[in-house]
Amino acid sequence: MDDALRQDYVKRINYVEGHLKGVRKMIEEDKYCVDVLRQTLAIRKAIQKLEALMLEGHLKECVLAGVREGREDQVVSELIELYRLAER
Amino acid sequence: MDDALRQDYVKRINYVEGHLKGVRKMIEEDKYCVDVLRQTLAIRKAIQKLEALMLEGHLKECVLAGVREGREDQVVSELIELYRLAER
Amino acid sequence: MDDALRQDYVKRINYVEGHLKGVRKMIEEDKYCVDVLRQTLAIRKAIQKLEALMLEGHLKECVLAGVREGREDQVVSELIELYRLAER
Amino acid sequence: MDDALRQDYVKRINYVEGHLKGVRKMIEEDKYCVDVLRQTLAIRKAIQKLEALMLEGHLKECVLAGVREGREDQVVSELIELYRLAER
Repeated sequence: MDDALRQDYVKRINYVEGHLKGVRKMIEEDKYCVDVLRQTLAIRKAIQKLEALMLEGHLKECVLAGVREGREDQVVSELIELYRLAER
Repeated sequence: MDDALRQDYVKRINYVEGHLKGVRKMIEEDKYCVDVLRQTLAIRKAIQKLEALMLEGHLKECVLAGVREGREDQVVSELIELYRLAER
Repeated sequence: MDDALRQDYVKRINYVEGHLKGVRKMIEEDKYCVDVLRQTLAIRKAIQKLEALMLEGHLKECVLAGVREGREDQVVSELIELYRLAER
Repeated sequence: MDDALRQDYVKRINYVEGHLKGVRKMIEEDKYCVDVLRQTLAIRKAIQKLEALMLEGHLKECVLAGVREGREDQVVSELIELYRLAER
């Protein structure tokens, strides 16, 4: 993983963490549940966006490298596993 | 929202926050992207579980109260909005 | 369910059925799997759109009627069940 | 795509088509919307299952062939496109 990419990922995690602290505060202050749910849904979208970026990097680097190095079975079964986890 | 419920929600948020810190560490230490993705997918599931619980509470309390108090239009349009946000 | 609504739902089902026949033809003619997947994903979106419309109708009619008639427990538990089925 | 696989896919499409005809009948006969939604959700799951099988075949055959033939950019960008379509 190159440095710029890693820094972008960490920045996104930090953003989600801040967002999550906001949600905890809302719950502690007994805010309206619909407002809390809007925020948790936005957090899930932000994580999904991070996953899309990581998957893209994974396909472009690790998967191609894996195929070239004869580890097709491993990279293919990992992709299928991730797909199944995501769809559940 | 009753106290026991609120404490359960906060506990779940704390758990997700800890999990997220673990993911950041994995990214900083350049762990294999497939392993990172497995963790972010688990985090999303945990948030989804929290949302299911909050939605259940919302339906049982706020929605029923809303209908009885003549705020049907508001509670129905909020539920439709949440559904759309979740399905996107 | 009013007549206009029912006709709209049937039209949407007919559209999905036609789309599905097209997908079967693509598979029988051994078309490129990525092209087939693009079509099945579009079919799922069309069904999801139909579900959103049906849910909206359900909330506006049956759920409100149910609450007024004292069947809160039934309508709430049905909504929770649908949410769980959809999220799986 | 080998013959056994293609036949399995067609059988799954036929099953979904039959299921869909059942849903149309339910709508025409004005069945309870919750029961209709249970069926459309099951149809979407069946299509999703078919997609998982097609994706698996695609990864094992076309993607590996594509990488070996120097079409990495094409196969990777197609996978990213499918992921985005599925997550929307």
